[in-house]
Amino acid sequence: MTYTPATQDQLLAIRVNAGIDDLANNEKFAAAEPDMVEAIVAGIGEFAAGEWAPLNRIGDIEGAKLENGVVRLPDGFAEAYAHYVEQGWNAISGPVGFGGQGLPFTLSCNVLENLGTANMAFNLLPMLSVGAIESLDHHGSAELQEKYLPKLVSGEWSGTMNLTEPQAGSDVGALRTTARPISEGEHAGKYFIKGQKIYITWGEHDLAENIIHLVLARLPDAPEGTRGISLFVVPKYHVKEDGSLGSHNDLRCVSIEHKLGINASPTCVMSYGDNDECIGELVGAENRGLMAMFTMMNNARINVGNQGVQIGERATQQAFAYAQERVQSARAGSPDRSSVAIIDHPDVRRMLLRMKALTEGARALLYYTAGQVDRGTLGDAGARARGEVLTPLIKAWGTDIGIEVANLGVQVHGGMGFIEETGAAQHWRDSRIAPIYEGTNGIQAVDLVTRKLALDDGAALATLTADIARDAQDEPTLAALAADCDTVAKWMRSDASVDDRLAGSVPFCTMLAVAVAGWQLLRQLRAIKDGAAPELAATKAASVRFFLDRIVPEARGLTAAATAGAESLYTLTAEQLAG
Amino acid sequence: MTYTPATQDQLLAIRVNAGIDDLANNEKFAAAEPDMVEAIVAGIGEFAAGEWAPLNRIGDIEGAKLENGVVRLPDGFAEAYAHYVEQGWNAISGPVGFGGQGLPFTLSCNVLENLGTANMAFNLLPMLSVGAIESLDHHGSAELQEKYLPKLVSGEWSGTMNLTEPQAGSDVGALRTTARPISEGEHAGKYFIKGQKIYITWGEHDLAENIIHLVLARLPDAPEGTRGISLFVVPKYHVKEDGSLGSHNDLRCVSIEHKLGINASPTCVMSYGDNDECIGELVGAENRGLMAMFTMMNNARINVGNQGVQIGERATQQAFAYAQERVQSARAGSPDRSSVAIIDHPDVRRMLLRMKALTEGARALLYYTAGQVDRGTLGDAGARARGEVLTPLIKAWGTDIGIEVANLGVQVHGGMGFIEETGAAQHWRDSRIAPIYEGTNGIQAVDLVTRKLALDDGAALATLTADIARDAQDEPTLAALAADCDTVAKWMRSDASVDDRLAGSVPFCTMLAVAVAGWQLLRQLRAIKDGAAPELAATKAASVRFFLDRIVPEARGLTAAATAGAESLYTLTAEQLAG
Repeated sequence: MTYTPATQDQLLAIRVNAGIDDLANNEKFAAAEPDMVEAIVAGIGEFAAGEWAPLNRIGDIEGAKLENGVVRLPDGFAEAYAHYVEQGWNAISGPVGFGGQGLPFTLSCNVLENLGTANMAFNLLPMLSVGAIESLDHHGSAELQEKYLPKLVSGEWSGTMNLTEPQAGSDVGALRTTARPISEGEHAGKYFIKGQKIYITWGEHDLAENIIHLVLARLPDAPEGTRGISLFVVPKYHVKEDGSLGSHNDLRCVSIEHKLGINASPTCVMSYGDNDECIGELVGAENRGLMAMFTMMNNARINVGNQGVQIGERATQQAFAYAQERVQSARAGSPDRSSVAIIDHPDVRRMLLRMKALTEGARALLYYTAGQVDRGTLGDAGARARGEVLTPLIKAWGTDIGIEVANLGVQVHGGMGFIEETGAAQHWRDSRIAPIYEGTNGIQAVDLVTRKLALDDGAALATLTADIARDAQDEPTLAALAADCDTVAKWMRSDASVDDRLAGSVPFCTMLAVAVAGWQLLRQLRAIKDGAAPELAATKAASVRFFLDRIVPEARGLTAAATAGAESLYTLTAEQLAG
Repeated sequence: MTYTPATQDQLLAIRVNAGIDDLANNEKFAAAEPDMVEAIVAGIGEFAAGEWAPLNRIGDIEGAKLENGVVRLPDGFAEAYAHYVEQGWNAISGPVGFGGQGLPFTLSCNVLENLGTANMAFNLLPMLSVGAIESLDHHGSAELQEKYLPKLVSGEWSGTMNLTEPQAGSDVGALRTTARPISEGEHAGKYFIKGQKIYITWGEHDLAENIIHLVLARLPDAPEGTRGISLFVVPKYHVKEDGSLGSHNDLRCVSIEHKLGINASPTCVMSYGDNDECIGELVGAENRGLMAMFTMMNNARINVGNQGVQIGERATQQAFAYAQERVQSARAGSPDRSSVAIIDHPDVRRMLLRMKALTEGARALLYYTAGQVDRGTLGDAGARARGEVLTPLIKAWGTDIGIEVANLGVQVHGGMGFIEETGAAQHWRDSRIAPIYEGTNGIQAVDLVTRKLALDDGAALATLTADIARDAQDEPTLAALAADCDTVAKWMRSDASVDDRLAGSVPFCTMLAVAVAGWQLLRQLRAIKDGAAPELAATKAASVRFFLDRIVPEARGLTAAATAGAESLYTLTAEQLAG
């Protein structure tokens, strides 16, 4: 089954939470005027639902397959990707100098939201290319940019990010892949890359003409840990002076993983330099690779949080459709004993409204975050700091609710939910990766209670909770949650040890995310009262009230866990604890 | 990988929460004296871990397969089932007159807990047989009991429960399978059964010599709905007068489902009477089949709640093992910059302790419930009523935490958790069915806020929260949760409409389950302080404190949702809501 793009709710979030009209007032984003925004949101929604959604199920069933070193996708993927490139969707927010439209990040979020709602696994192909584009755009030399960016921006070539090695997951600094300078011959000035990388998303495939790998590796005599890592661009096919493709570089896909979900996204083990002939070029300064990588990882984290919204939307629509079709039992306590569609039973309504409220809350948080990032790009330091505070929230909470919503979707289907043919189970399986990759949700929470808590000497976070409290004067529960968040933050910054902060990091991250999402939903509701999106007035009131009256109070229940401290976690040694 | 049976924690729960020594003081359960209990718990643990656990992975990968009408299991299953039967484990709590040992339900829970921790899908085979045994034991004629019970009790034959049809899921009353009396010939007095049933667990297989199907069907001119349903026993192979097997009955497995998990458990579509020659015998009175089925469904619901404990234990052990092996990053804030096993990082500890606390809490609730059921069997009406209140709690909350714990297990594994070979993902997939079958968790919550809330004019529930409050005088948070539960219950019994109660049913069910589980853990901790299970003292203190200090406060956060009422769920029509 396919779905209907959530165009109206997206436009509402883009206007109210991202504040697109304000952004368009700036010369840099002047193209983002209302007609253009509507055309993009409606256009990508229609394209994604029409061309990518029908491939979601076959992508799960058949999946990506490795055959003689080449990864094959099911029929239809190559054509659907080609149409995506032809229609220019990949270039929405790419750099203007290289064929991009330079539109706000907010709109690239929307392109990804629609593509990912249609087909989460497939959407990882453009998502990863964005990382490669941003790395090269911010840190590559003019020569590298000229060589790689035009076709990456158009989408004719795709990009990958190569960080992880078996011993180096969350601890990227432990990586061992090497880069050896080439001092003579045709490749003088370049590097021999050698090593193995794992979990490389879309590391091999035949949908694009070339694949541009961004690879973290160590130069000879580089310092240990994160300060000795450099970034290299390593193409699948060498690119000649005239831009045409040369021979195959010495790199290959060794295997692809058998995964729980997103089966259409090939997760590759990549081997570089089996024959000592893998050639790469340095991006940015020596030993500054991790910094180069991190400049684009923030947006990548937002893009992964976006996946929670995507799977939430898809699962919610499927559950609503089933609940309207499936007739079972009469209403309890009703004199009418005829069976009704299950959407009319109170607990099914509760589940459906929860799915809708969580998805819309995550969407409001997503576009609020994107809008702050765009303001940061325009030079607003306060917005940039806020965007940094919000990033771990949308990544962690967004992906957590992705699972929760998909889980409720399975439940609404009853026994049918457990049968793979129904499709509800696929959403749940697909959703499970998002809390893991691009920094586990635990890592996001660490980021929140260390770097982000300390940002601007605590002011970045304190102004956020203060803004919520100010707007929530008529919403006592939301105001109370904002106050709880403030209390936790103050405790963390004053009395708590590092361990105490880390022990409470995940509950705190959830509390704060719910507070911000509730606030942004409240802003939507007020905008609607002021005349925005009248067609959403009735349904939005229902979902926002559900969020504020039922979900916000739950988040308050996390306060104890957020401030419980670490001591009780360490009363036992690891061996004792494991029994 | 295999696992270590949680023998000590099980014995603690059996002693403290089920109160096995008290039970053994009664003549009926006199055999359950301490040495026997220890022998059973240790013995089934060793058997399950040794013989059934190694088949868990292959059961997932290869699964059950339908070939020419016969369901095949992977190599090893037939032998492992035969050993289980030979060693007499199937007969633990079966009726004494038919070869059973007549031991308390508490101990059959333990047998199932161990088998299911080893292999959740495989364990459904004996679990479903229990239902058939109880139906025949309580409602079958002496002749039927003599004919079927001995081999069902031994496990040489297995049993199934046939309720669901495509149009009759939660609404069993909508079923259409028919039973037509046979008035003459060799089968006079029996019935022709005709219809199709779905979701029949272990409906076809070749591990037992015969399969005894308990089938709900309608007699001619039966009243509509649940009052016109009768129960029939329908053997796969006819049983002759001398007990030997005759010809194949006119029934067959049409297909087996492609499911999200428990792949080794064949979920069958069964067709009865394709050739109008399917013969069954009536169990109990005409049109009283649903009552006959429900007498055993309560225990079946407890057995499904048990599956949450099972998957929780297995997932927890696997996560602990991985977290001790996996070395990644130095401790934050520590002067020692060498990498540590991830179990030493605060948030990983938090996840692991949460897994352990939830699993132990569900186990404490499980055995507390089982002990009340056993007291009810001995004639204690108060205990019987309490067992009835507890049943939806262990079924719904036990299976919910099964998913949550398995989900945390995936997260602890990081990227490896998403790779199927690791096995963590299987636990999560397997766990997903338990909130659906044997009455969805929504149905459990309906049962709680309708029948169970009204039991003994509200006293059954009120005495439970009063008992918790009394024991929790030194635990203010637990006492507060008990008070919250009491407040919700009073509101539901006074001011709330049926719809209001149903709208808050699931949050209330969770709150009450957490309160009871926390209380039962507290009782364990106090028993340990009084000298019980000194070997568990340190670890139990850590998990109980985690539960009381972090999980109990979260449950308080559900109070608002439990009392929010139904009105806000019905501001929109179904069509408006679905957009």
